[in-house]
Amino acid sequence: MRILVINPNTTASMTDKIRETAVAVAAPGTEIVALNPADGPVSIEGHYDEAFCLPGLLEETRKGVAAGADAVVIACFDDPGLEACREIVDVPVVGICEAAMAAASMVGHGFSVVSTLDRAIPIIEALALKYGFERHCRRVRAASIPVLALEEEGGAAAAKVREQVLAAIEEDRAEAVLLGCAGMTDLADALTRETGVPVIDGVAAAVKFAEALVGLGLKTCKRGAYAPPRVKSYSGALARHAPQPPLKAAE
Amino acid sequence: MRILVINPNTTASMTDKIRETAVAVAAPGTEIVALNPADGPVSIEGHYDEAFCLPGLLEETRKGVAAGADAVVIACFDDPGLEACREIVDVPVVGICEAAMAAASMVGHGFSVVSTLDRAIPIIEALALKYGFERHCRRVRAASIPVLALEEEGGAAAAKVREQVLAAIEEDRAEAVLLGCAGMTDLADALTRETGVPVIDGVAAAVKFAEALVGLGLKTCKRGAYAPPRVKSYSGALARHAPQPPLKAAE
Amino acid sequence: MRILVINPNTTASMTDKIRETAVAVAAPGTEIVALNPADGPVSIEGHYDEAFCLPGLLEETRKGVAAGADAVVIACFDDPGLEACREIVDVPVVGICEAAMAAASMVGHGFSVVSTLDRAIPIIEALALKYGFERHCRRVRAASIPVLALEEEGGAAAAKVREQVLAAIEEDRAEAVLLGCAGMTDLADALTRETGVPVIDGVAAAVKFAEALVGLGLKTCKRGAYAPPRVKSYSGALARHAPQPPLKAAE
Amino acid sequence: MRILVINPNTTASMTDKIRETAVAVAAPGTEIVALNPADGPVSIEGHYDEAFCLPGLLEETRKGVAAGADAVVIACFDDPGLEACREIVDVPVVGICEAAMAAASMVGHGFSVVSTLDRAIPIIEALALKYGFERHCRRVRAASIPVLALEEEGGAAAAKVREQVLAAIEEDRAEAVLLGCAGMTDLADALTRETGVPVIDGVAAAVKFAEALVGLGLKTCKRGAYAPPRVKSYSGALARHAPQPPLKAAE
Amino acid sequence: MRILVINPNTTASMTDKIRETAVAVAAPGTEIVALNPADGPVSIEGHYDEAFCLPGLLEETRKGVAAGADAVVIACFDDPGLEACREIVDVPVVGICEAAMAAASMVGHGFSVVSTLDRAIPIIEALALKYGFERHCRRVRAASIPVLALEEEGGAAAAKVREQVLAAIEEDRAEAVLLGCAGMTDLADALTRETGVPVIDGVAAAVKFAEALVGLGLKTCKRGAYAPPRVKSYSGALARHAPQPPLKAAE
Amino acid sequence: MRILVINPNTTASMTDKIRETAVAVAAPGTEIVALNPADGPVSIEGHYDEAFCLPGLLEETRKGVAAGADAVVIACFDDPGLEACREIVDVPVVGICEAAMAAASMVGHGFSVVSTLDRAIPIIEALALKYGFERHCRRVRAASIPVLALEEEGGAAAAKVREQVLAAIEEDRAEAVLLGCAGMTDLADALTRETGVPVIDGVAAAVKFAEALVGLGLKTCKRGAYAPPRVKSYSGALARHAPQPPLKAAE
Repeated sequence: MRILVINPNTTASMTDKIRETAVAVAAPGTEIVALNPADGPVSIEGHYDEAFCLPGLLEETRKGVAAGADAVVIACFDDPGLEACREIVDVPVVGICEAAMAAASMVGHGFSVVSTLDRAIPIIEALALKYGFERHCRRVRAASIPVLALEEEGGAAAAKVREQVLAAIEEDRAEAVLLGCAGMTDLADALTRETGVPVIDGVAAAVKFAEALVGLGLKTCKRGAYAPPRVKSYSGALARHAPQPPLKAAE
Repeated sequence: MRILVINPNTTASMTDKIRETAVAVAAPGTEIVALNPADGPVSIEGHYDEAFCLPGLLEETRKGVAAGADAVVIACFDDPGLEACREIVDVPVVGICEAAMAAASMVGHGFSVVSTLDRAIPIIEALALKYGFERHCRRVRAASIPVLALEEEGGAAAAKVREQVLAAIEEDRAEAVLLGCAGMTDLADALTRETGVPVIDGVAAAVKFAEALVGLGLKTCKRGAYAPPRVKSYSGALARHAPQPPLKAAE
Repeated sequence: MRILVINPNTTASMTDKIRETAVAVAAPGTEIVALNPADGPVSIEGHYDEAFCLPGLLEETRKGVAAGADAVVIACFDDPGLEACREIVDVPVVGICEAAMAAASMVGHGFSVVSTLDRAIPIIEALALKYGFERHCRRVRAASIPVLALEEEGGAAAAKVREQVLAAIEEDRAEAVLLGCAGMTDLADALTRETGVPVIDGVAAAVKFAEALVGLGLKTCKRGAYAPPRVKSYSGALARHAPQPPLKAAE
Repeated sequence: MRILVINPNTTASMTDKIRETAVAVAAPGTEIVALNPADGPVSIEGHYDEAFCLPGLLEETRKGVAAGADAVVIACFDDPGLEACREIVDVPVVGICEAAMAAASMVGHGFSVVSTLDRAIPIIEALALKYGFERHCRRVRAASIPVLALEEEGGAAAAKVREQVLAAIEEDRAEAVLLGCAGMTDLADALTRETGVPVIDGVAAAVKFAEALVGLGLKTCKRGAYAPPRVKSYSGALARHAPQPPLKAAE
Repeated sequence: MRILVINPNTTASMTDKIRETAVAVAAPGTEIVALNPADGPVSIEGHYDEAFCLPGLLEETRKGVAAGADAVVIACFDDPGLEACREIVDVPVVGICEAAMAAASMVGHGFSVVSTLDRAIPIIEALALKYGFERHCRRVRAASIPVLALEEEGGAAAAKVREQVLAAIEEDRAEAVLLGCAGMTDLADALTRETGVPVIDGVAAAVKFAEALVGLGLKTCKRGAYAPPRVKSYSGALARHAPQPPLKAAE
Repeated sequence: MRILVINPNTTASMTDKIRETAVAVAAPGTEIVALNPADGPVSIEGHYDEAFCLPGLLEETRKGVAAGADAVVIACFDDPGLEACREIVDVPVVGICEAAMAAASMVGHGFSVVSTLDRAIPIIEALALKYGFERHCRRVRAASIPVLALEEEGGAAAAKVREQVLAAIEEDRAEAVLLGCAGMTDLADALTRETGVPVIDGVAAAVKFAEALVGLGLKTCKRGAYAPPRVKSYSGALARHAPQPPLKAAE
């Protein structure tokens, strides 16, 4: 099976880290295609950035599934465009926040999230509510680092993440800690080993859950909320994005 | 005061109807600027269309506030881009779903919504949850009409809306009925008169609530969730949308 | 339009402050009639006081609407008698807590409330739940001052309010702060200017939202929860309060 | 022990039925004092009537506890004045809706309520939310009868109640049915026998739960929400109701 | 009436304490039968222990009701087996957590619980959610003592409980404090007297509420969730536990 | 990896069906060990049966993990003993209801469940609440068939399940339908093909999610809710079940 892992920002070094994680956890028969759009924000920090990652994300989703991807993973912890992607394909689409929260709920009684900047806190709290994990989520914390600090040498950002992970375990009594940014994907294993508490990276979780859904033969329901976009015209510069008949997974 | 009312789709006839409503309810000193982006979907029916209304919506928001708008109304009942718009300006930004639900909660004990297509139901239910009105919202109904049917001659679409409004009052015991699409803006008054129950159009509600917020001297809080987008570069074709320092309302 | 602003306690100096605020925010065409009942508690601090403000509040509501008021504002942050007032008139009736919470939800992501005494905390928490803002409301704080301390010279009470407003912004990360007592109505603007965070006074908010509802032509739904009281007799000393056929707004 | 059962309306025949039920379920050592205020509504049907039952209810509560009552039952299913009564005494105060819902939650998995008029539905739904039983409460139904119809000869009202009780069991799969008006107190036993499902009268439930609380030596907590009303003056005709230092149960 | 109070662990000294409390609060006509199963855990601290208290608890429930018990109290604060017991008898079955929370909700506005070990916290939080008291429950605290420490001489465990009760009142503003273990049953009265805040023991509360339900003539509904177990065979060593036709209370 | 799939009832034909499903979806490297306890109920229909499946379920869990299982699946839709099993092992333990609901939430916007008997409805509703899916779960339906009817020739039970699946899609607008009994495991694929809507079997879902968790290197957190049972003695016939030091997954 082929899983398309899309980093919705345009920072290639982050895409590389994401690919590394995805490949490391993928099952023997799974091919990982990790990429990022050419156009869009270099990092996603807030709703405005989210808006401008969508054209690239949606286009890569469409193209990737047309080329045979069996599932799509959106590798940004804000899960941008999750519902829109589900509309345009019928293979499963999994967000890394969604997957991390579901995994956490199965290995511990309550979890905390360690994100980057304060401004991410309300976004992740809103996702917990949307997915139904608002009672499982004990606290969303910010390590007070911009996303791209995680790409820098020296590990100062990693140290700040570690500090919040430890605080989540002690102060929130978290029984699992989620790393709330795809750029933290390389930190999970060491923190799990150090703390003895599951520290969960959403990229890995989403890849494995996507494998699970594909293995179950499940596809996104095309009735109701995720029905294909209605065919219509788009005006002006966006005309080429106008909805076409829905894509099918390669058969 | 000047209120910018943005129809996020590109159908000018709908913008005309929206302008008409906005002007009709605006207070004497209020200037209404109603417009739609040049680029984007001709109607917004689902998450994919929503994604592609955002570039135009955000650009018009930025330009309109730079030119002196004191508040912004997003005239699509899905309230697309509400949080993103709030990030880039410091004047109040009001969604028509948000305003209609708040108004309904003040004149009746529970409300129903009459929307266009089935696929809008989960979107509006999610908004009710986000705004805190999930217990006030008795039911979201669909009139089973595409958005642009509301622009057609003959009133067949209006008849279907009316049918659901009546059903909401009888079957849901709704004490207010919200018209769940900006394209229904011209139907509210007649239905209120016919039924004796408040039938609320979000365009009108949002204009009046925007006037209220401006009259109160309230601005969008620029700390936390709606802090200005962090200055950064956007790659490729989207480079010109990269966040600049935040706009101020004209003084 | 004429808006009747009722201070449900009998302290005239507080009514004066309330009138001042209301007049200051009212639109050009709006006439403010601010008054308090002759009979009842000098301040409202708890459920017992609330009970005894109701006869005067309801009588003033009835009389004021009979005399032509287009909307009623109940200027006590406990929103006493809100539903009862809605039963006896068909013009909009707005509570100041209700209006302040709705306004706050439109300009910030989460709010805190600063009230007077500890005993107000559960009352305001219950209102947040009733209105659907229990997730938006981060914390209800008490400044530990009796209501009438706000009427005294010297500003000691104002200093305590300010202290809690600052704590709400720092500790609760509140993106709006509500002043939880009508007697604080004169403090909002200075605190907003000082903190850069919207500090919202319910009296002003309710006046503007009442203007908005009247401008929308909305009336309280007379089916269901707010149907007119059934005509019946009241025994003994309360006979004169027995429900009469419902009042209409002056036409 | 002495339990004061207050019918907050002024209809003596209903007080008689209430007394009969209370006496029938009271334990051997329990003295029942059932009474109604002299002043106030002849029946309580909505928020306005509720407001005007409060002066009498509060006065009887104060007097009855001063005279030695060990607990107070408020015998109206809207539980009017529950918190205000708790402020002025330190003996337990129990509402009949509150008690009926608590009892139902212990003998069945979900319950429905059969009330009088449609307008009672939102009031009882709000109580279920306040008490935490909103998930246990499957539906609030109205028998479409005014309260005082239950005092009339012939049993037409009783037949309508029975019809809704049967519907609650069949359609809502209710595992307990609450009679949502003190005036239905005489119907519970026969309906329980007929249906085999617990049909619960709140008057009886509240008397037994009040006995239980007194037997446990529990008193209303006088810190926080139910602290005694602050001593202050009331203006004009209501001066005599001004809060005095809190009453103690006779010792 | 006869109330069967089952301590689901096998520690006889705890059963003695429980009996003492139950007898002390029982009404004159109430016979208390307090016992524990011969087989099972010596204390219940977590889900595994809970599982192994069930066979003994269910067998004693069945036998005790067959022998004429009119109600059953499960005297462990985790309320283990509550629903299973309700399936096999038609008399009321009351859990001590359930009863304590219901009692607390009637004498204070919000409560905290003081339990034994940290691991009890999520269990009691889950019960609060199940019973609907998640908003009433301000915090579940642990005194960091194993259950059987409460059976030891010297009062060290009692001192730790007292410390948390005081903290609940000061820090959580709890208006009632629940003792979250049947082994604390002897501590409630002194703590209530010391603090002036209701400190509630579940054993006592459940006995009185069981008396109340019996006094009301209420039985567990045998339709729906608590229908008798379907008659079937059990394999192997558990064959003798296979469901028989439902027991009736002695008549 | 080895996944232990425990059918907690003792009906071998159902275990065979469960094994067949598990083997069919397992990844190449996954060994499935499917078994049922020798002792216990032949089917699990309600809380009493649940109680008596626990000793066997827990013993098989302990033995299977000691023998090298990397994860455990509990193959009964009531998810009995889920938390207790998590206490005694440190490998992941997944319930089939839990897994099915998580999978459904990723491929459709709202789901319904089709279970066996009416009495299962409140049990599954309670699980939805526990897992956080109470808003995703549109309705729990019963096909009105005993569990073991699914083991009988002729397909009458399957026809009734199909009927409810179709009703869930039409009436509840379900975008995924969960088969609410492990005995229905063989029906999912055909119903998915027939309806075009994901019809999800929990056994398959749990096996794939268990594979995912193992692939992620995640283990059950041994701090907090799922800490190992405290070492202690159990009395009498249950002595041999007394908690031992926690098992580790074979390394």
